[in-house]
Formats: sequence, structure tokens, C-alpha cells
Amino acid sequence: MATNSNTTTNLESAISTGLLITDNDLNDLIKIQGGFVRRLKAEKAASEQITEAINKLTSLKKELCNRQAVDSEEQTAGGVNLLKTPKGTRDYHPDQMKIREQVFQIITDCFKQHGAETIDTPVIELTSLLTEKYGEDSKLIYELKDQGGAKQLALRYDLTVPFARYIAENRIATMKRYHIGKVYRRDNPKMTRGRYREFYQCDFDIAGDFDLMVPDAECIKIVVEILDKLDLGQYKIYVNHRKLLDAIFAVCGVPDSHFRPISSSVDKLDKTPWHVVRNEMINGKGLSPEVADKIWNYVQMHGNADLIDKLRTDVQLMTQKSAREALDGLEVLFRYLTLYGVMDKIIFDLKLARGLDYYTGVIFEAVLTKYQYDSQLGDDQVAVGSVAGGGRYDELVCKIDPRKRSVPCIGASIGVERIFAIKEHQMIESQIQTKTIETEVYVASAQKNLIEERMKLCSYLWANDFKAEMALKRNPRLLDQLQYCEKNQIELCVIIGSAELEAGIVKIRDVETREEFEIPRAQLVEQLRVHLTRVRQRIQES
Amino acid sequence: MATNSNTTTNLESAISTGLLITDNDLNDLIKIQGGFVRRLKAEKAASEQITEAINKLTSLKKELCNRQAVDSEEQTAGGVNLLKTPKGTRDYHPDQMKIREQVFQIITDCFKQHGAETIDTPVIELTSLLTEKYGEDSKLIYELKDQGGAKQLALRYDLTVPFARYIAENRIATMKRYHIGKVYRRDNPKMTRGRYREFYQCDFDIAGDFDLMVPDAECIKIVVEILDKLDLGQYKIYVNHRKLLDAIFAVCGVPDSHFRPISSSVDKLDKTPWHVVRNEMINGKGLSPEVADKIWNYVQMHGNADLIDKLRTDVQLMTQKSAREALDGLEVLFRYLTLYGVMDKIIFDLKLARGLDYYTGVIFEAVLTKYQYDSQLGDDQVAVGSVAGGGRYDELVCKIDPRKRSVPCIGASIGVERIFAIKEHQMIESQIQTKTIETEVYVASAQKNLIEERMKLCSYLWANDFKAEMALKRNPRLLDQLQYCEKNQIELCVIIGSAELEAGIVKIRDVETREEFEIPRAQLVEQLRVHLTRVRQRIQES
Repeated sequence: MATNSNTTTNLESAISTGLLITDNDLNDLIKIQGGFVRRLKAEKAASEQITEAINKLTSLKKELCNRQAVDSEEQTAGGVNLLKTPKGTRDYHPDQMKIREQVFQIITDCFKQHGAETIDTPVIELTSLLTEKYGEDSKLIYELKDQGGAKQLALRYDLTVPFARYIAENRIATMKRYHIGKVYRRDNPKMTRGRYREFYQCDFDIAGDFDLMVPDAECIKIVVEILDKLDLGQYKIYVNHRKLLDAIFAVCGVPDSHFRPISSSVDKLDKTPWHVVRNEMINGKGLSPEVADKIWNYVQMHGNADLIDKLRTDVQLMTQKSAREALDGLEVLFRYLTLYGVMDKIIFDLKLARGLDYYTGVIFEAVLTKYQYDSQLGDDQVAVGSVAGGGRYDELVCKIDPRKRSVPCIGASIGVERIFAIKEHQMIESQIQTKTIETEVYVASAQKNLIEERMKLCSYLWANDFKAEMALKRNPRLLDQLQYCEKNQIELCVIIGSAELEAGIVKIRDVETREEFEIPRAQLVEQLRVHLTRVRQRIQES
Repeated sequence: MATNSNTTTNLESAISTGLLITDNDLNDLIKIQGGFVRRLKAEKAASEQITEAINKLTSLKKELCNRQAVDSEEQTAGGVNLLKTPKGTRDYHPDQMKIREQVFQIITDCFKQHGAETIDTPVIELTSLLTEKYGEDSKLIYELKDQGGAKQLALRYDLTVPFARYIAENRIATMKRYHIGKVYRRDNPKMTRGRYREFYQCDFDIAGDFDLMVPDAECIKIVVEILDKLDLGQYKIYVNHRKLLDAIFAVCGVPDSHFRPISSSVDKLDKTPWHVVRNEMINGKGLSPEVADKIWNYVQMHGNADLIDKLRTDVQLMTQKSAREALDGLEVLFRYLTLYGVMDKIIFDLKLARGLDYYTGVIFEAVLTKYQYDSQLGDDQVAVGSVAGGGRYDELVCKIDPRKRSVPCIGASIGVERIFAIKEHQMIESQIQTKTIETEVYVASAQKNLIEERMKLCSYLWANDFKAEMALKRNPRLLDQLQYCEKNQIELCVIIGSAELEAGIVKIRDVETREEFEIPRAQLVEQLRVHLTRVRQRIQES
């Protein structure tokens, strides 16, 4: 806690002294301070302390606001300001790329561990493929301008519909595949919470006509393994079944044609209070207040596998075949999840609905409990929430395939942008500087006019598989060269001078300890390997 | 040569017997057969042999043509056919992804070896950033439909302009960065030659005010290292200097305002005969025939570093300051490239112009000599050609930056799609089946009703870091399970039955040799590790 507060103070004073703090840093600060306020409240800290923390948060927000105002002035003054990425998109800086690579590595290792192969599909698809697949969200699809091509094109909205197209097009019967790629949604971005218009999805899907709940259990198992390995703190996986929801809607008196729109309304209950959703159901979607309230009685229910038995005593619900099927399915699923050792993470939650239209069976969503929605704190204070989700979509391939071949599918999608946001916080809080370049040997010279010697030496080191670099100036100062090494945590520096060259020796410098050793040039490769191993062992032990 | 011909025959007979050969395979066959024809011609083979090979090529092309006709009929008959990626885009299948991953790995390893860090930028940028950066090619930019956003958006055309924006936006003074990402061009795709509308670029750039030709030499050195490691066969790197070209245009009598358009015409000389380019210069761009012919006298010149001395004797050219500067620069560059041991790959070629407008200094392009343009064979027969290119762009950052801060840059871009195409040929020719999944242990059962035991065992193996899989059916046939292992080259299979379960033992099967060993269940992890090591050694040795 103390660290947190200090970090913020340090960076705040950095702002006030005019040091370069990017808007990104500022956003991060706001997030950290927001978290700090939440925790103070949760721990019921002294009210002065809370007030102080809130004031600090407010001043940070004002600073960001001011900057944005200045930016927009600059824009008006100097014509078009080209120095912006489009709304809802972002650049990844080298230290953020390091995090991204680590997160992707953990996720793909896990997918591969389960025998998945990978594919890639284009970012652009025919618009006609994407329409009528996403229900109310279809309005969020980015379309390309008609520039004289034969077909209307759009940016993909997810990786699931392209996967279904791939399965249909290649007449595939079974496939376990993963796909990591960017998707696009003209949504209202909340970038502080890791929500963007361009963002990565990491999807794992199993296509094929297998036995009841076997692939479904594996998808949920994989989500658990990934979240555990990513070490994001406590989480829960909410599970429900679309057929059960449909049965509930039916017994509550919702007309068939309204199942999907009402499902979309129920989906909002994780972020929106009931009275707002109720209002939408009644005034926006034409339900009677009685029907809405009946739905509310059902969707408040949540629990573990025992809830299945409770629902089975609901005579009216049990008249619905789809309810009986869903509960039988969930019973099998929960048994498999127990065998997989993950049932302690599962909450069977009747208000989980998932936004997309194409789900037909089990649906699930993983939520970090530390960052969960809290109506007391309001929407602004919620950092991330859902980090993974998925479900069964048995009819999508058939809908796309002109031959109407049916291939049942289930998939899980990891919301990596939110995970990046958390990992970035963790990085800022830890105050450990990320190493963004991998150079292990730097070739420096102590005197002028040795650039050609440095080049020859670098070339020799590259040929011997070292990661090597040198200054790109003809006559760099030794101090600058050594500072570059220290700043970038380069392990070793080889220093040459004319005396050393004549004597056939080189100097190896251990950048961290600043020790120097003279060795015969002929032993360079061998000695560098010895010293590198030594330095790395020291770093690992510290 | 014999292998080639046989491969084609095998696959051709596969087509005739109705086996599933995808359009992609067919395209590959056409490419292979085309290469075969070229080589027969080059080796001046017997004319009957050439005729036979050409006939085979023609029949393959007809087959593809027929299929496309059928496809378009299907489309008309059944309404909209959704089963297509947009023109000029493609899916990557698992075996192609394997190749892609290997190629990316080699390239990024090399970039990292030179101390580069990586960034990512959005696929969409403000249209205003991209306009007026690409000269004649600006018409190829994909724009997004105006769906009510404040700013016009477009898909990025390359990674260079976004990099310049990044440098300007973040007020960076020096940076060595690489970036791998998809870019978009509304070009006329020639997919058989690895040319697409959506394609990957792998860029390495050095931004910063360093000393003459030091970063330039490193960029070319990197291209050599990468092409050598990718093992694509013989290649040459053509080098020229924009300032030298401009001086040539000046002394030939081209007006200043026409330098870039005439440069674009010269750029076409690698694929277009002189008389066509001459016609464009005269009738399309208003040069007099005399001026065009003077240009032709210059741009035919090519050679090694000696050409610098020859050009220095050209009194008229030497009146141009930019010519003197360019030649002095190239002299330094060639000395550095000699120190880097790559000068034997370099051709100083005055007709190299590069398409993009933003280059200001050294420009270069790497061409695989095996796949080079041959006017005798015509455009259709040319497989790939250029696989890397780049150059210096000293004014781009300044042009974008509203503060007009200048950051000189140079970069190299690897044309990976063409490299993928070559690697795919090599894969098809080698007839080695690619392993697209990494599963090392498969959990099978010999009897019915053991799914829960298989699940427990899989879960145990995953927890012990094995890459493990099982059939997703309740009661799969043992034969199907074993066939899956063999087809996917899975190393080991663990087989359980009720007798084994009772006795506390499991059977390990070596999938390739079909040997089986019974071991106590308690030793499973340890024994699997021993057997895996043994199997891998055997595979490596074979």
C-alpha cells in the first residue's frame, strides 16, 4: 500500500517539475490511484486519508483533461494534427511489447499443450459474411469505403465468424485450433479499463461432432490454466446455458421472437442495475412489467452444482425440454470440471447471458474478483472485470455453409488487452525497469578513428551468434557508450583502443560491476561466453 | 529435377482420381511446374521434353480455370457465396503457419541480435497521415467508410509512415526498432507470386542523427544475414542513391517538378521493357524523346564500387552537388559493406529507383537471382523476384511533426509473403509432412466407459507440463486413437484399460515403432520423460 502511494507521489512530483510524463503514464497513474482509493475504502481507512487520496486522483484527472484541451488547441492552431492514433487505438511501446510477448507466450504454450494447431485469416472479410451474426452489436462493425471493388468489405468483429467460414470453406469435420489476432469494434472505448476499438483476441476453439460436454469442459479447463499461469489474482468463472435461458424466457412469457433481444438485456446486468435493465425490457423491448419481474426472479439465482437440483424442482420450468437438456448437460459438465480439478472456480449464474447472438449451449465468462463491478464505486472506478469468455455455437458453420453442412463448435476467447493493462500496472508498481533490447555485448572504443575496427569486431561477434551492438557515430565518447550499456542493462562491453589493438588484446568490462579484464584477442569468443554465463548467474541469484 | 516432375505427376493423378486437391495446392502445382519449364529451357533440354512440360502446365492452368468457373456458377445459383476471403487476401493453414512462425523467428532473432526493440502501431491510421506520402501509389490506400466518426480513417499502407508518426508523437531522438505487421494495398494481386492486398511486412529501422552511412551499412548487413539464414538460394542486393538519380534527371534536362514521377517510371524497368517505360515518360509524363534517351544511357549502368570512379569522370554530372554527395556517400557505404563482408552481394545499379516518394538517400533492393525477371519468359513465369528493400528517408518525420523536428531515418523491409511462397514450394517438393500440433503424449483407452479415467490422466499430465491430448468421444475405438497418433506424429501414447487400472499399471506405446511397455502408474511422469528423450534422439538421428 505504502509503495503505491509513494509511486504516485514520485510521478506526481515528476509532472510538477516538468519531467516528460506521457499521457499513457498519466492514464496509468490515474488507474493506480483509483485502485488505491478503492482499497482504502474497502479497508475502511480513516476518512481524511480517503479524502486526500481522492483529491490526488482528482488533480491527476484534471491534468489529463488540461492536456487534452491543449492538444485540441494545438490541432486547431496548426491545422491537422497527425500525431494521434485513431480513437480507441493505441501504440505499443517497447516495454509494453515485452509484456505482450510474455502474455502471448503463456497463452500459446497452453493452447499447444492441449494439441491445438493455429491458423490465420484476413483482417478484412466480406461484409455479407459478418452481417446478421452479432445481433444488436452488428452496428459496431467497421466497413470499408466502396473504392470500386466488386464486394463490400469490413473489418472482422471477432475471430469466431472467420473461423466458422474457414471450417465451412475447407470442409473440415474436426479441428482444435487457436488464433491470435486483432479485431475491430466501433464501440465506445474505455481505454483506461483496457477496452479499445482495435484489440487482440486469443481464441481457442474445438470444431466437430464430439460427445456431450467433453470439448466444453476442456475449453473451461484451458481458461483456468491460462489465468493461473498469468498470475492475475483471484477470479471466478461464471457458467450458464443458452437453452436454460431460453426455457426461462419461455416460462416467464417472453415471445420466441424476443429471446435474443431480451438475452442482450440480461447480459447487461453485470454492469447495470436491475431498474435500468427492467426499464429497457419494458419500454424498449415491449415486455409487460410482470414478465420482466418474473425474469428477475430467475436471473438472480446463482450457486454451484446444487442449483441444478433446485431448478429441477421447478415444475413449470421442467415442462420445457430445453431446460431439461440444459440441466442434464450442465450436470455432466460440472462432473467433468470436478475431474479436471477446477470446479472450485465455477459459479453457475443464471444472469450470465453473453452478448453475441450465435451461442446455442454452454456459455461462460471469467471475471477477476479484485476488479469486479461494484455499484457503490460506480462505473468509472472499475478497472477490468471480464478477462475471458466463450461458449458453444452449434449452428454458425451451417448458417454460413451454402451446402448446409453442420459442424458443432465451442470456443474460449482470452481478453488480452485487459490482461496487458493489469500487467502494465504491476510493472509500474514494481518499479523494475524492463529490458527491451537483448544486446549482450557492446563494442566500444576508447579513442577516435576506430569505427572500422568496431565494425569488424561487431561483424565477428554477429558471425559467432552474439547479440552485439556499437555506437553509430564515428567518434563516440567512451562515457556515452558506457552509459548506453548501463541504461539498457547490457551484460558486457568490449573496449578497444589502439594500444590494445597493437598488443593483440581486448578489454572486457562487466557493465554492472564495472570490473574490467584484459584478454588475448584470439580468446575473445570463448572468454565472452564464460563471462556472459557468470554475469547471468549473478543476475539470477540476485 | 526428377523429383519435381514426379511430384507434379503424383498430384496430377491425385486430381484425376478425384482426391481433394485445394485450389491452393493447384496454384502451388502451377508454380512448381512453371519453375520446371523455366529450368528445362535454361538447361536447353530436348524440345519434346519442354513441350511435354508445357502441356502439363497448360492442363493444370485449365483445371484451375474450370474450378473458378464452377465456383462462380455456384455463387450465382445459391445466392451469395460467403466462403471466400476478399480478393488478394488469404487464410494461412496450419502447415503454412508453421512456415510463417519459422520465418518470423529467423527474422526477429536477427533484428534482436542487432539490438533492436519492437513496437506495434494500429492497423488503422488517420487518412490525413497517409496522404501525400506515397506518390503515385496513394490511390492504392484502403479507406474506411464514414460511419459517423470525427476523422477519416484508412488501413496502413506500410509500417514506415506509422513509424515516423510514432517517432514524432513521442519526441524520440534515436531508436533502433523492428516491427512485424500486416499492411494493405488495393493493388492488382498476383498471389501465385506471393503478392497480396493484405500482406506482412517485417521492418527494421534506425532513427537518429548518426554518422554518414553507419546505420545504412547496418541495414544492408542485416538483410544479408537474414537472407543467408533463410536459405533461399543466390541473391543480389541492388544499391543506388536518390540524390544521384536526381542529379542524373537534372543533367538530362528533366524539370525539378518531374523528378518523382520520372523516378516512378525508372522504377518499372525491373519488370518492364525500356520501350514501354520510354513511351510512358514521353506520352504520359511529357518528356522529350531526347531527354528520355539520355536517362536511358545513364540508368543502364551497373557494376561494383568501380562505377563510382567512372561516374566521377562525367564532368557534366559532377557539376551537380547532389551527385558529388551521393558518390562520396556510396564510397563510404561500400567500404563499410566490405568490412562487413557483404560487398560480393552488392550491385551498384543506376536503374534502381524504388517506388515510394519518401526516400532521400541510399536505396536498395534484394533480388533472388533464381527467380529474377526474364523478359524471354514473360511476366507470368516470374515467381518472386524482390524479397527485401529499403532506403533512407531523412525528411519524413519532419514532414509529419507539427513542431518540424527533424529525425533522419533509414530502414529495411523484408517481403515475407514471397519468402513464405518459396518456403511452401520447398515444403511441397520435399514431401515431408509438417507436424502442425505439438502433442507429445496421447491418452487412449482400450475399453469403453473410461472417459473419466482418461480425463484424470490428461489433467495429471497437463499439471506435469506434458503436451497431452485425448479423444473427445466417450467411447472412441482404439484403432482410431492410434491412427490419430500416427497421423499427427505424436511421440507416445499412454493406453489404459480396466485391468491395468486395477493392477496400478499403464501401458506406454512408442507410436513410431509400435513397441509397448508396461510401467507402474506411480512412475508414469518419470518414465514418460525417459521415453520422450529416447524417441526424440531417434528422430533426430534419422
